[in-house]
Amino acid sequence: MKSEITIGLLGLGVVGGGVATILHEHQDDLNHKLGVPVKIKKVLVKDATKKRDTYLAQEMFTTDLDELIEDPSIDLIVEVIGGATEAKQAIERALRAGKGVVTANKDVMAESGLELLKLADENKCDLFYEASVGGGIPLIRTLEDGLASDRITALTGIVNGTTNFILTKMKLEKKSYEEALAEATELGFAEADPSADVDGIDAARKMAILASLAFSTDVHLDNVFVRGMDVIQEGDLELAEQFGYTVKMAGSAKKDEDGIEISVEPVFIRNAHPLASVNNEFNAVYVYGDAVGETMFYGPGAGSLPTATSVTGDIIAACRNLLLGVNGRRVHAPQHSCKAKSDDQIIGRYFHRISVKDKVGVLTHLSSIYSNHGASLATVVQPEGNQNGGVDLVMITHQISRQQHKDIMQALQNVPEVNKVVSYYRVEGENK
Amino acid sequence: MKSEITIGLLGLGVVGGGVATILHEHQDDLNHKLGVPVKIKKVLVKDATKKRDTYLAQEMFTTDLDELIEDPSIDLIVEVIGGATEAKQAIERALRAGKGVVTANKDVMAESGLELLKLADENKCDLFYEASVGGGIPLIRTLEDGLASDRITALTGIVNGTTNFILTKMKLEKKSYEEALAEATELGFAEADPSADVDGIDAARKMAILASLAFSTDVHLDNVFVRGMDVIQEGDLELAEQFGYTVKMAGSAKKDEDGIEISVEPVFIRNAHPLASVNNEFNAVYVYGDAVGETMFYGPGAGSLPTATSVTGDIIAACRNLLLGVNGRRVHAPQHSCKAKSDDQIIGRYFHRISVKDKVGVLTHLSSIYSNHGASLATVVQPEGNQNGGVDLVMITHQISRQQHKDIMQALQNVPEVNKVVSYYRVEGENK
Repeated sequence: MKSEITIGLLGLGVVGGGVATILHEHQDDLNHKLGVPVKIKKVLVKDATKKRDTYLAQEMFTTDLDELIEDPSIDLIVEVIGGATEAKQAIERALRAGKGVVTANKDVMAESGLELLKLADENKCDLFYEASVGGGIPLIRTLEDGLASDRITALTGIVNGTTNFILTKMKLEKKSYEEALAEATELGFAEADPSADVDGIDAARKMAILASLAFSTDVHLDNVFVRGMDVIQEGDLELAEQFGYTVKMAGSAKKDEDGIEISVEPVFIRNAHPLASVNNEFNAVYVYGDAVGETMFYGPGAGSLPTATSVTGDIIAACRNLLLGVNGRRVHAPQHSCKAKSDDQIIGRYFHRISVKDKVGVLTHLSSIYSNHGASLATVVQPEGNQNGGVDLVMITHQISRQQHKDIMQALQNVPEVNKVVSYYRVEGENK
Repeated sequence: MKSEITIGLLGLGVVGGGVATILHEHQDDLNHKLGVPVKIKKVLVKDATKKRDTYLAQEMFTTDLDELIEDPSIDLIVEVIGGATEAKQAIERALRAGKGVVTANKDVMAESGLELLKLADENKCDLFYEASVGGGIPLIRTLEDGLASDRITALTGIVNGTTNFILTKMKLEKKSYEEALAEATELGFAEADPSADVDGIDAARKMAILASLAFSTDVHLDNVFVRGMDVIQEGDLELAEQFGYTVKMAGSAKKDEDGIEISVEPVFIRNAHPLASVNNEFNAVYVYGDAVGETMFYGPGAGSLPTATSVTGDIIAACRNLLLGVNGRRVHAPQHSCKAKSDDQIIGRYFHRISVKDKVGVLTHLSSIYSNHGASLATVVQPEGNQNGGVDLVMITHQISRQQHKDIMQALQNVPEVNKVVSYYRVEGENK
């Protein structure tokens, strides 16, 4: 049996620094759990000569990946450099060299997760990626182990901390989008270029990872229907509130006999739903399983130490397997092919905000368009206030298909009394 | 490698029936995950001749435990008979016979968990007990694996579905305790004798199990300070609401350099806290870790299929270990001895409701008693309404020790203007 586990760390940024800290400060606990010490041997960085405020010795730093991959004493590679190409190549090289890999990389896992897991299996190596989704929340492990015996049918998640922070500030502190984004940037919750967050791409990657695992299938990023935060119009958050909803940038993945549907978009969530009160930079994933029913997992979706907790949890799991000689023994081949639903099969309720000319009979005319498309309306309301020579009508439908919704949107464009459809939202978490 | 895994099931009640159902209905999924089928071979019941509505063949049923323990083809014993003595003996016999054990038994795990885990280790067997706490929520696994690298410092949980259901109905539907209890009994959430639930013993067992694991120590049931639901007085729930709190029957376990404190009691939780909106029969555990910060795990705390999901998740984990030949390799010896804090070291905020004679100066006099005991007051309020020749004062303290709280309670008894202390609550989840 090995007398210690040796780690090669790729990157010493926000997450990498956290991993180094936890491995150092909790070394007694880890030693107790594993029976052997876990030590970082080498660290790949961009500048090996830079002075760093760390307990790690200067000679550990290198700019040469070969030094880690070709060192036979390194058991595990921990990839926390982020990004796509370089990280993927490093993971592949590590697996081919027979080293276990722990990664926090959602880009790589969303794009190439199954391919890399297959490579890991072939090389009898572990590839763990808990930190790629939900920061400190143990979601991957929960889907893979805790709920392993169940059949997951729906998964709704707030998996992007930046957009959730912005929406929380806009709702609770009445800040503008720009003010809220500026605050998020200042506090380190948003990156210099926040487009992957606000466009929904970051959340789409995470939903692809979660859905692949939950449904034991191979979800590609282009299976995810995405609408960014830019579709939210002034007044929408207040309107939501007026009807008892909260606007959240949410991912949704559902599976039934027809197939799978996955989306990331701003949705209306009923205030009583547990996800509605997930605020600020926090993440939460609501999981519905056939047998277990409703569960929810809540925690910090990002940040140095929370994310490092997940990485280090994976390190412990990988170390255990190495010490027992059972690394790389999980079945990762998906059980089902990914059958995406058509727009006809994707059912939901919709909230439509429509600017119309303030004329007698407009409401009747619009209602008839909905019924002509087989859509039954739950609520039709004309909120008070007259905007620029028109009024905004709110139509909330019962369950309709995405195709019906699209057809109605199209039909409304040809109605003379309609100025424009101001905005629309799917209503999430109702009528399961 | 084994070509199948064979299970001996102890009990076919609510949970056992659910386990049989999941193993049957999800057999393809399990087979995919494990590579071999998992089958129930024998079932221990009280009456082997009784006709049952199940796919299990009549000849599988037996009333003789020996038939399961002495059958060398049975790999795993799944204990879901509940209760204490008989179940514990069965688990011991199974472990001594070299069989892995999965149990849902909180009584046994709270009383004898470490002893049994030691026995399991000695016999190189797995002993898994996810379903003993939190029904379908994977809490044990989260503490053991997901947050393995972190140092948990606080754990607050709604871990008893019955009392939470009752309190929810009392708060939201203004039912009396008796009406709410009757409804809980009718819906199957409360047992015929609900005393273990309403007295807090059930929750205390679960908190002992969780705290032992979270703090890697040996918590005994008598380390848990317990107050039952009977301390809640008429009007308390409304008073809580008036001050922005919700009354919850909550378990709390905290650890710092002074030691450990564990309690189960009705507490005031600020409405904005995620635990405050955990309603009905749902359970949730809020975990605070040094590195990860705040996390919460929410789901059904009881019920046939939810609990069976946890049991079957454990079965899968035990099967994996059996197939890999690495069963019984976890370290279960606690890292720390359990150092219980004294009342001087247990700090919290308190809500005191005191019935006093409606006289000038009474508020000043009472306030002076608090300050004489070094307790600073956050809020002093005399709610409207005059009850039976007196008024009820509300005093909410800043952080004080449990000893200070006790001393104040004592001192108030000797104050002529005080009729009685109507009720008191610890304020949970504030000023961490």
